[in-house]
Amino acid sequence: MKKFAVLGYGTVGSGVVELFYKNRAKIESKAGSEMELGYILDLRDFPDSPYAEKFTKSIDTILADDEITVVAECMGGVEPAFTYLMQCLSRGISVATSNKELIAQKGAELLANAKAHSCNCFFEASVGGAIPIIRPLHRCLAANEISEIYGILNGTTNYILNKMLTDGMTFEDALAKAQKHGYAEREPSADVDGHDACRKICILSSLAFGKHVYPASVYTKGIREITLEDAAAADALDGAVKLIAFVKKLDDGRILPAVMPMFVPHENMISRVDGVFNCIEVCGDAIDRAYFCGRGAGKLPTASAVMADIIEAVKHHKTVFSQDWTDAGTQDFIAGIDELVCGMFIRFAAEQDAAALCEKLTADLEGCGSYEADGISAVDHAALITFPMTKAQRDSLLAKLAESGLTVAHWMPVMEA
Amino acid sequence: MKKFAVLGYGTVGSGVVELFYKNRAKIESKAGSEMELGYILDLRDFPDSPYAEKFTKSIDTILADDEITVVAECMGGVEPAFTYLMQCLSRGISVATSNKELIAQKGAELLANAKAHSCNCFFEASVGGAIPIIRPLHRCLAANEISEIYGILNGTTNYILNKMLTDGMTFEDALAKAQKHGYAEREPSADVDGHDACRKICILSSLAFGKHVYPASVYTKGIREITLEDAAAADALDGAVKLIAFVKKLDDGRILPAVMPMFVPHENMISRVDGVFNCIEVCGDAIDRAYFCGRGAGKLPTASAVMADIIEAVKHHKTVFSQDWTDAGTQDFIAGIDELVCGMFIRFAAEQDAAALCEKLTADLEGCGSYEADGISAVDHAALITFPMTKAQRDSLLAKLAESGLTVAHWMPVMEA
Repeated sequence: MKKFAVLGYGTVGSGVVELFYKNRAKIESKAGSEMELGYILDLRDFPDSPYAEKFTKSIDTILADDEITVVAECMGGVEPAFTYLMQCLSRGISVATSNKELIAQKGAELLANAKAHSCNCFFEASVGGAIPIIRPLHRCLAANEISEIYGILNGTTNYILNKMLTDGMTFEDALAKAQKHGYAEREPSADVDGHDACRKICILSSLAFGKHVYPASVYTKGIREITLEDAAAADALDGAVKLIAFVKKLDDGRILPAVMPMFVPHENMISRVDGVFNCIEVCGDAIDRAYFCGRGAGKLPTASAVMADIIEAVKHHKTVFSQDWTDAGTQDFIAGIDELVCGMFIRFAAEQDAAALCEKLTADLEGCGSYEADGISAVDHAALITFPMTKAQRDSLLAKLAESGLTVAHWMPVMEA
Repeated sequence: MKKFAVLGYGTVGSGVVELFYKNRAKIESKAGSEMELGYILDLRDFPDSPYAEKFTKSIDTILADDEITVVAECMGGVEPAFTYLMQCLSRGISVATSNKELIAQKGAELLANAKAHSCNCFFEASVGGAIPIIRPLHRCLAANEISEIYGILNGTTNYILNKMLTDGMTFEDALAKAQKHGYAEREPSADVDGHDACRKICILSSLAFGKHVYPASVYTKGIREITLEDAAAADALDGAVKLIAFVKKLDDGRILPAVMPMFVPHENMISRVDGVFNCIEVCGDAIDRAYFCGRGAGKLPTASAVMADIIEAVKHHKTVFSQDWTDAGTQDFIAGIDELVCGMFIRFAAEQDAAALCEKLTADLEGCGSYEADGISAVDHAALITFPMTKAQRDSLLAKLAESGLTVAHWMPVMEA
């Protein structure tokens, strides 16, 4: 008999409890042991819950119970979750967390403490909700040198961008609709300004490259500036605007992580991942590329990932050494956004004659390094896409456009994967 | 220091050797141990190979070496692979195999022998090539009751169907092109008649539901009958023809696995998985659905999956109990194809007036149970799609169509996921 506890009885925590009792026989069979939910920690009272007798307001009750094998943390936020989990790990209790803010900020410390006490700090649910990505990335792709990861890691912004494209809703209206449906918070900044996606790409970057990438080191731009005109022009050029979180390994060994709206061509299946779904593309030297898609949030989808971690902790009570990273003591291994080489999706302030625009820009592009007449890969009457360029080349092109009286309304990078 | 051996130096086996030396530092770091390739077993001679001194023609050489921790089997076919792997497992040597024919035929015996000797029989590479699916299915989705799995599990047929749709090539021409590019064998039956996909859905079904599903129990139909007209009509109805391997859990607890060409609506991302890529959709009660896509074959992609198994075997030399299934002693838990409830994609022998066709069929469908006027979900001048029906309802509709002089050229099931 293995006992576990759940910290936080919000959406995810109550989902973990629900899922355990729903599929208990299957879960115990997979874990190879009978299991019991020992405690639910929450500061609120739930007198009518069928699990009322399991609630506690104090972590000490849980820490004092020697029978607890693993604790699932679904509270969110850095504190008190961090303090609680450090106390658990120090006692050899494994933890499973859905808390991306916590892992993005404190992952290296938690993982080191787990290692020191021969137990595990699992976090499958912290990225991509229901999507298996943490274990596949570090185990199934273990023989690969990872070169790039791209993802739609925030379902709220993907829902909003999708509504703008398919229903012609403005950003504000689409956000209001997302809030009405419970897909967006009343204070939507963590989603629409990219912070949530930033935390998740920090976790994937840290896991893939072994050094803790902190959110403050990652260029992050949200979707507030995206207009209906951007969505329509992207569609005309056979692509879609998506909030993309990515990390690339540069030739010098440094990595470049960032979060920003990008033009994604329809050739890449990420462009067609709609609504609240998430999708992650991993590029490695042996696999070429693999995609992982599914529900990125929600009660039972996220609980599924937490419960998988609980099962693993019950089965293997011994540190999984490779599923970790360390604090490098510096963030010098992270390149800044100015080093990004990318194509440009440029939307003009007024409609243009496409043929004349193309001719004009071909001349302009002659000054942009080696791109010259090949610089444009697609052109519509209101927008165009260039081949990949350095920042200097991009700046030069934008300056030439300004000189020639062509007003750029908005530009964003092209996802090249 | 952990030693491993590779059986079979064909495409996959030589890929495993190449990948090990290419990414050795990373692989050893993930495995938590230094590693060495001890032997390569092949009946052919490779005197010019840089690894010439590692070749052996006898499994006994490998079995006699007490330092061998894990053997990678990349020979293909049931024998002698089965005998060799049983010998390894009986000595406590873990195995990692890419051989789907072997696992589909002999999985239960191999897994039981691994369990009896406290070692592992891993087979991540047997389904989906580079795509992580075996571990994600049994570990990351462990808390789910799996209800359905759908997949494009054969890249050769997907390439052929894709060429028919996008380049207007006939089946014969597309097959010839696939053979020219090395995507199809000279004797293409295993691919185009669905046997390869059948073996893979047997493995996924056995893993998801715990009982060995043998290929002989699975209805299997290939793509030889698919015509350019089918591809064009499917496109007109916003979908694509794909060779789909699937398994569904029925309400009475039995399962229904099958392989057949299906109409896949474009709303499902599987319809847009092109070329030699594979994609697997897993439906579970907590996750809703998740998708796993990537290269389903090829030297390094498949080697990536084999090497991940080797790493796991080096790290955890102890049976992973839940990653297995047993022989149920009967195949009574498998339902036959006549029990499939599905919509129909019906293509007519001659073009029809779409409005008149719709009106006519609405009348015809009144005799088809509860479907009546709602029976048709999409109609083109040459084809239509119905809502889901039982076999009796389908037979009734086809009889009515015949009576009324509307000649059906071809029909196939609609993938409903």
